[in-house]
Amino acid sequence: METERYARGLEKLTEVDGEGGKHVIESLQHIAPDLGRYIIEFAFGDIYSREGLSLQERELITITSLLTAGGCEPQLEVHIQGALNVGIPQEKIVEAFMQCIPYTGFPKVLNAVAAAKRVFQNQ
Amino acid sequence: METERYARGLEKLTEVDGEGGKHVIESLQHIAPDLGRYIIEFAFGDIYSREGLSLQERELITITSLLTAGGCEPQLEVHIQGALNVGIPQEKIVEAFMQCIPYTGFPKVLNAVAAAKRVFQNQ
Amino acid sequence: METERYARGLEKLTEVDGEGGKHVIESLQHIAPDLGRYIIEFAFGDIYSREGLSLQERELITITSLLTAGGCEPQLEVHIQGALNVGIPQEKIVEAFMQCIPYTGFPKVLNAVAAAKRVFQNQ
Amino acid sequence: METERYARGLEKLTEVDGEGGKHVIESLQHIAPDLGRYIIEFAFGDIYSREGLSLQERELITITSLLTAGGCEPQLEVHIQGALNVGIPQEKIVEAFMQCIPYTGFPKVLNAVAAAKRVFQNQ
Amino acid sequence: METERYARGLEKLTEVDGEGGKHVIESLQHIAPDLGRYIIEFAFGDIYSREGLSLQERELITITSLLTAGGCEPQLEVHIQGALNVGIPQEKIVEAFMQCIPYTGFPKVLNAVAAAKRVFQNQ
Amino acid sequence: METERYARGLEKLTEVDGEGGKHVIESLQHIAPDLGRYIIEFAFGDIYSREGLSLQERELITITSLLTAGGCEPQLEVHIQGALNVGIPQEKIVEAFMQCIPYTGFPKVLNAVAAAKRVFQNQ
Repeated sequence: METERYARGLEKLTEVDGEGGKHVIESLQHIAPDLGRYIIEFAFGDIYSREGLSLQERELITITSLLTAGGCEPQLEVHIQGALNVGIPQEKIVEAFMQCIPYTGFPKVLNAVAAAKRVFQNQ
Repeated sequence: METERYARGLEKLTEVDGEGGKHVIESLQHIAPDLGRYIIEFAFGDIYSREGLSLQERELITITSLLTAGGCEPQLEVHIQGALNVGIPQEKIVEAFMQCIPYTGFPKVLNAVAAAKRVFQNQ
Repeated sequence: METERYARGLEKLTEVDGEGGKHVIESLQHIAPDLGRYIIEFAFGDIYSREGLSLQERELITITSLLTAGGCEPQLEVHIQGALNVGIPQEKIVEAFMQCIPYTGFPKVLNAVAAAKRVFQNQ
Repeated sequence: METERYARGLEKLTEVDGEGGKHVIESLQHIAPDLGRYIIEFAFGDIYSREGLSLQERELITITSLLTAGGCEPQLEVHIQGALNVGIPQEKIVEAFMQCIPYTGFPKVLNAVAAAKRVFQNQ
Repeated sequence: METERYARGLEKLTEVDGEGGKHVIESLQHIAPDLGRYIIEFAFGDIYSREGLSLQERELITITSLLTAGGCEPQLEVHIQGALNVGIPQEKIVEAFMQCIPYTGFPKVLNAVAAAKRVFQNQ
Repeated sequence: METERYARGLEKLTEVDGEGGKHVIESLQHIAPDLGRYIIEFAFGDIYSREGLSLQERELITITSLLTAGGCEPQLEVHIQGALNVGIPQEKIVEAFMQCIPYTGFPKVLNAVAAAKRVFQNQ
């Protein structure tokens, strides 16, 4: 059963985050393998696999949450790539960041746009 | 021109936040009237009036940002009502909060669900 | 298997948070039952059930994280009670908050001590 | 010597925060008396007693920091009163909050203006 | 009219942030030009151009807000330079950061002083 | 007397943070020497020198607070080394970070584990 959650999560992680997601999990291999396992089982196997929101909506929500939290640029880059992977166009990602200005102020939006710039340059 | 931004913003504020939005602006009348004006002109006249995202997507992004920031329960209640006003069903609002669990942890999601509960009870 | 995680988590939740924990889960029953289920399965079934830290150490870490995050007073009260339940004396809970002063500043510590005061009064 | 820091801090606390400051210290008497002592000795005896900034500038900085942190409304109310005590007019306090809009977004400024409204009503 | 806000904002941005401000706007040219326009029109044309606070007071408030938010070091560097540009001496910038210690704790103040060190070295 | 606090704090700083702590103080020498003095006198002379928690418990609390605050990676690295210095094994440091997942979400835990990885590689 745990195997089912793990398999479902790994498939979802690969679908959303692709190479970036795999790289995060691998980087945890020696120091905190269970952290990687929980990301697969819980974040992707439980949460991302739920019904009620499209994958595009889930990525919009995730990049919004990471922009707002601040200090999560590495994860923001992985999920900006994830947003592109599930079919959100570059312009819409930037537009989502624009919508946050009244709620987070300009500095966090500037940081998120800088992260997007780094990701878009590798497309 | 400023009049145009103000009129466009007021229309958008009314469309999205309805009575809750008007109440916020009125509460600022004597102490900080320009704050209310900037919310109308900038947040709604400039940002909410942009193309590139549907109003439903803008509300999803806004409630996600408010949940993640924390300590913004009054504004979260206004925008949960706003999300209902633009046609997002209750289940989808809760589902958006569920998507945040891996990125914000449980406590902020619990606070957001409690805010949703207060708003839903008044429908 | 899922049943095992759920059962293990419920037992741990009851051991740590007692009535306060059950009350949180029940309050989610109609609006977001899966949120309650994930708290039981993941937070308590997976994380709290791990080896490597005592329950007292886990509660110290949890109340420190909630104090530092800010705006999580309801959850802080539940876990201050949880800290008492697993045998941490009142003086040590306050001392843990004192240790945070250099890292969070006084305001968040004042909020946490106020939460502790409310919990201690009900003992 | 410690007595000197304490005496200097208590005088400064009384000058800045008046009754509100004394009330905070008294509320800590039974649960965390050292917390009150550190606020007097360190926050007021060491930091507020430094040269290089006027008391008005220190209060401007303090209310800005509390607005930006979020979730510190009780402390914000004490220091809005403190800002009035050291001679900052109500309009300037509100104007300081307006200056934060581009950096924190509207929600935290709305929370700070609501706190100011509560304080100003008691003048 | 919009032209008036833009022109007024650009003049203010140049007065406060000088080259650093222009560089931020230019870096947004291809990815999010409207973000740069809103910074000029709203942050500088609307907010920085208001009466009621001197430019020195506005910069004190801005660097305090950025220090407290955390994770905004690039913007903090631009506005530390801005604080110097409007005539705040280096010692007073550092003293403003010292005033934040009781409210934010040491780590964020250490980050801000490190940013100041980088800016001061280029004078 | 002040000398006593300073001496006690310096001894504690050296015991906990070793070279990393000294390096922080030295880096402040020219720009903000009082900041270094307050870290020694207040953070270490007053807070770390209190009774009621072991040094290992204090370091657990400190690294939890720094992880939760976010954006404090330099200070987190110093205190991860500090945790090792007072005898907390690497596995337990990582386990403390795991305990934070339900309260902060995955991104901040990923940042903390990355900081731990950098520190552990220098052992």
